[in-house]
Amino acid sequence: MSEYVKVAVDAMGGDNAPREVVKGAVEAVNESDKVKVYLVGLKEAVEKELSAYTYPKAQIEVVPASEIIETAEPPVIAIRKKKDSSIVKALNLVKDGTCDAYVSAGSTGATLVGGQVIVGRIKGVERPPLAPLIPTATGCSLLIDCGANVDARPSHLVQFAKMGSIYMENVMGIKSPKVGIVNIGAEEEKGNALVKETFPLLKNCPDINFIGSVEARDIPAGAADVIVCEAFVGNVILKTYEGVGATLISKVKEGMMTSFRSKIGALLVKPALKQTLKAFDLEQYGGAPMLGLKGLVVKTHGSSKSIEIKNSILQCITFTEQQISEKIRQMLASE
Amino acid sequence: MSEYVKVAVDAMGGDNAPREVVKGAVEAVNESDKVKVYLVGLKEAVEKELSAYTYPKAQIEVVPASEIIETAEPPVIAIRKKKDSSIVKALNLVKDGTCDAYVSAGSTGATLVGGQVIVGRIKGVERPPLAPLIPTATGCSLLIDCGANVDARPSHLVQFAKMGSIYMENVMGIKSPKVGIVNIGAEEEKGNALVKETFPLLKNCPDINFIGSVEARDIPAGAADVIVCEAFVGNVILKTYEGVGATLISKVKEGMMTSFRSKIGALLVKPALKQTLKAFDLEQYGGAPMLGLKGLVVKTHGSSKSIEIKNSILQCITFTEQQISEKIRQMLASE
Repeated sequence: MSEYVKVAVDAMGGDNAPREVVKGAVEAVNESDKVKVYLVGLKEAVEKELSAYTYPKAQIEVVPASEIIETAEPPVIAIRKKKDSSIVKALNLVKDGTCDAYVSAGSTGATLVGGQVIVGRIKGVERPPLAPLIPTATGCSLLIDCGANVDARPSHLVQFAKMGSIYMENVMGIKSPKVGIVNIGAEEEKGNALVKETFPLLKNCPDINFIGSVEARDIPAGAADVIVCEAFVGNVILKTYEGVGATLISKVKEGMMTSFRSKIGALLVKPALKQTLKAFDLEQYGGAPMLGLKGLVVKTHGSSKSIEIKNSILQCITFTEQQISEKIRQMLASE
Repeated sequence: MSEYVKVAVDAMGGDNAPREVVKGAVEAVNESDKVKVYLVGLKEAVEKELSAYTYPKAQIEVVPASEIIETAEPPVIAIRKKKDSSIVKALNLVKDGTCDAYVSAGSTGATLVGGQVIVGRIKGVERPPLAPLIPTATGCSLLIDCGANVDARPSHLVQFAKMGSIYMENVMGIKSPKVGIVNIGAEEEKGNALVKETFPLLKNCPDINFIGSVEARDIPAGAADVIVCEAFVGNVILKTYEGVGATLISKVKEGMMTSFRSKIGALLVKPALKQTLKAFDLEQYGGAPMLGLKGLVVKTHGSSKSIEIKNSILQCITFTEQQISEKIRQMLASE
């Protein structure tokens, strides 16, 4: 089968590597016969984990890499020096065309830097954004950009809006996705210098369904499908989401444990509650794609368990089948 | 008693004015004999509401104002044209020394603009920030700045840190409050241009207890007492807090209503849950002070009920007794 979607997976990345990464890869190939996983990492350690499972052998290949980039390492230096690291070798598999996509739960910095310098940008892309899906009351929205390059220019944000629209339409199946720019009020004249300059550009952009400003308060309710902002603001939104969610849920648990009566109640509501709160869990969506590169680069949470690794690998199938990178290339070429 | 703390209250401001505002004022004077409230607004409407209550007559005075500034009005023009509005008249009571403080649930823009042009800045204050208290797992933190003036300079942020520290130490009673700057990573070299420039200035500032960068994820856990950021970012944090909180709580309620079993459980956990979630309610802290002005200006939520109006009035007592404006003046004079 030469039609496999081929995914290079950093087997050594994340808090639970290689165990959960290998497990996730096995789960992915057991679930789909469309994907082949290249597990990149310390050969012996990866093969030892693999030996515990049953899976179609043709769909997993181990690619040896002797080094590991730690999350604390300065990414630019790490990428340059550790040529035999799992991250660099996995990215090179995308660069040389062996693989279509890359997945890592390891160093965000190294993945973002490596994505740009090894895989490379699509011609015309000014800055490749990192765009996680965040849960909302009605489904999910793409928060674009949450990457490491802050102080963006208006033209960057316009490209984010376009690339995000392509992603939501083709990968998530949302027709004519609503695009909003994060602002501190609904009126066009509000905002900081960047938002004020970007607003009219988005308004006059024919390729997207721009709905105007979105206040952060309305994001969790599902106000827009594509939430455009520069990376500092995106990072703050993403992490406030995580922090408020975690604190609030621990408060709910604490509240349920305050009395005998509430403890009995907690036992009764727990299954139902678990189900609804799962729909609001940031981690269920697998990884965040880095858009605008010649291949797909996906960053998943450092704390990923096998299910997120599996979901991240499987999302590469739709992305590749839908030819997102090609669609981005065409969009930029037609400008 | 000439030692009353005198508070000018915009009786016409907010979604529930004048009813809830008048009720809150009555509750405040019934709770404390240290405060006198000047209710500024349409005389007949305010007096009609007042007539329903019993309270110490010496502690409430009605000040007639014939106009109302709506929230949708451009603030600069509204402040200039509507000289007989409740907002302008109430701010003038602070300016002319009749009152020590001002409270409004009305137009944020008009309050922020009016605070600066009518009450006026303390000499040396470059920009007066709006600084709400936000709930955390361990208490509350001051988020400074959430105002309308975006694109701040490093020197503004340093003043925010100092004024915020004075507030938290003297009004909230937190000794040597921890000051953090909102950033997208813990390392000193991370951040946007503003944060990178501000970081060393805060680090070398002898008047504050600077603990370095704070990631938005750690704010709800109570990572710092004074959270310094420019207004766009502050606004995004505040509103993401509100939005995620509201959506998550509605999800919890939805989860509890999914089955017969969970509905029974919900009845049992409800009282305990209400108690813990109340501690995480943004609205319990009354209003957000605008710091650095010659008098105290407090903005409360547009949706304020009497309890928030009351709390906002009562917080003016501590602020005035602790001579916060005087302490800010001294701090700036000693530089």
